[in-house]
Amino acid sequence: MNSQPLGIFDSGVGGLTVVKAVQGLLPHESIVYLGDTARVPYGSKSPETIRHFADQNVRFLLSKGVKAIVVACNTASAHALSDLQKNHNIPIIGVIEPGVDAALAEPSCQRVGIIATRGTIRSHAYQHALALRRPDLLILEQSAPLLAPLVEENWIDHPATIEALKTYLQPLLDRGMDTLLLACTHYPLLIPTLQSVLGPGIRLVDSATTCAQHLQTHLASLDLLAENASPTFDLFLTDLHEQFELLAQRFLASGPIKAARVELS
Amino acid sequence: MNSQPLGIFDSGVGGLTVVKAVQGLLPHESIVYLGDTARVPYGSKSPETIRHFADQNVRFLLSKGVKAIVVACNTASAHALSDLQKNHNIPIIGVIEPGVDAALAEPSCQRVGIIATRGTIRSHAYQHALALRRPDLLILEQSAPLLAPLVEENWIDHPATIEALKTYLQPLLDRGMDTLLLACTHYPLLIPTLQSVLGPGIRLVDSATTCAQHLQTHLASLDLLAENASPTFDLFLTDLHEQFELLAQRFLASGPIKAARVELS
Repeated sequence: MNSQPLGIFDSGVGGLTVVKAVQGLLPHESIVYLGDTARVPYGSKSPETIRHFADQNVRFLLSKGVKAIVVACNTASAHALSDLQKNHNIPIIGVIEPGVDAALAEPSCQRVGIIATRGTIRSHAYQHALALRRPDLLILEQSAPLLAPLVEENWIDHPATIEALKTYLQPLLDRGMDTLLLACTHYPLLIPTLQSVLGPGIRLVDSATTCAQHLQTHLASLDLLAENASPTFDLFLTDLHEQFELLAQRFLASGPIKAARVELS
Repeated sequence: MNSQPLGIFDSGVGGLTVVKAVQGLLPHESIVYLGDTARVPYGSKSPETIRHFADQNVRFLLSKGVKAIVVACNTASAHALSDLQKNHNIPIIGVIEPGVDAALAEPSCQRVGIIATRGTIRSHAYQHALALRRPDLLILEQSAPLLAPLVEENWIDHPATIEALKTYLQPLLDRGMDTLLLACTHYPLLIPTLQSVLGPGIRLVDSATTCAQHLQTHLASLDLLAENASPTFDLFLTDLHEQFELLAQRFLASGPIKAARVELS
């Protein structure tokens, strides 16, 4: 048992879908969240830059006394996770392995589509992890850089979002996709729209839910679970704006939220 | 006469539409361009953060020996221009005043729509500049945060772009807009699509072209124009990626381009 907080970071507020899933599954954990909103998005930036940013984020969370860290950002998980694990002496988990586990948990899974930011797709991190475990799998990668901005605009079922989804998903449907991996923490908010665009028969795997489940197992195995009667939630952002607080509310499906601004170094 | 280069900066590569307009109008000027691609976009960030980034960008351009600077970014022009002009002893021009001048040059202009990023709209910089000169004007502001990402995806006439433009522009059309100010350097690429969505009778004013014209007049008045027989063009980005080089080509309508990566401090 360990009552110290969990640290969770993302390039922006998308990772709050992971916070929401963790709070649902582990309601006694205190959480410190860092959103690097001054430098969001990571998805279009180079691996070297993303590794540098991710390292600064981890150092900030360590300064807050966290017991474990979740990289709640697919782009940072893809490019920075192994370096972070090498350089810091604390459990650090990403969103990719849990998503891959969940996709493969269903034995009927034969043709997996992956949608993500350009940076995540370019890393081929999901493709490598899936192919290693199931060399026979057909893997269909699709970068979908407009989906996160559409979610941030709250155009969840806007005609523009439906048109964008059709363009991104039709090539995967044409190749017989049976499972779609939502490899960006913004995308859980699109699940109802995705279901109506895709129709029945396509399984959706989202990285927020699967990451929370993986975290629970991992903390239990290390005896790091907390039983705080009044767990705390602290929200730090590298750039503060009312818009981010509104977005945070939407991602957490919660009431008003106050964030504090931090400078990273 | 002064053969030193012009400095032009933007949060990303959108400001290259200004470079293209400047090269068209002033073909003998050497240009140093800085795109802050590691921290793009500015449009969703706070005024304080934008001022800090803009100051770093100016310092970098000064280190390259430029004779004058163009802030080819509407968000940075809105929030940082007056501070930059106060703190640096060199001509610095933004994109807002030229756009306002061009909009008002047509005496029939009565109802001006402005589309821009959230940051530019929130600053009300265009509204203030227009109202100061023409208190009787009806000014219609509309933030359009998805348009720059749609341009970067090269979805210039995609159904999603047309749906987004309809949502953004219908409220302005309903109020009888006669002039539309494109207050983001990405938007000149959307002009053909805008013309088809808006139909005839709406005048489009783009900040790239108008800024280049203003620059020409300003440099001439200070005797700073160059007559370089072989003008140079140097492209610096704070994050380097093939995607940015491709985008740069598209924005400049040129052949292959090599960029150099710089760290700002």
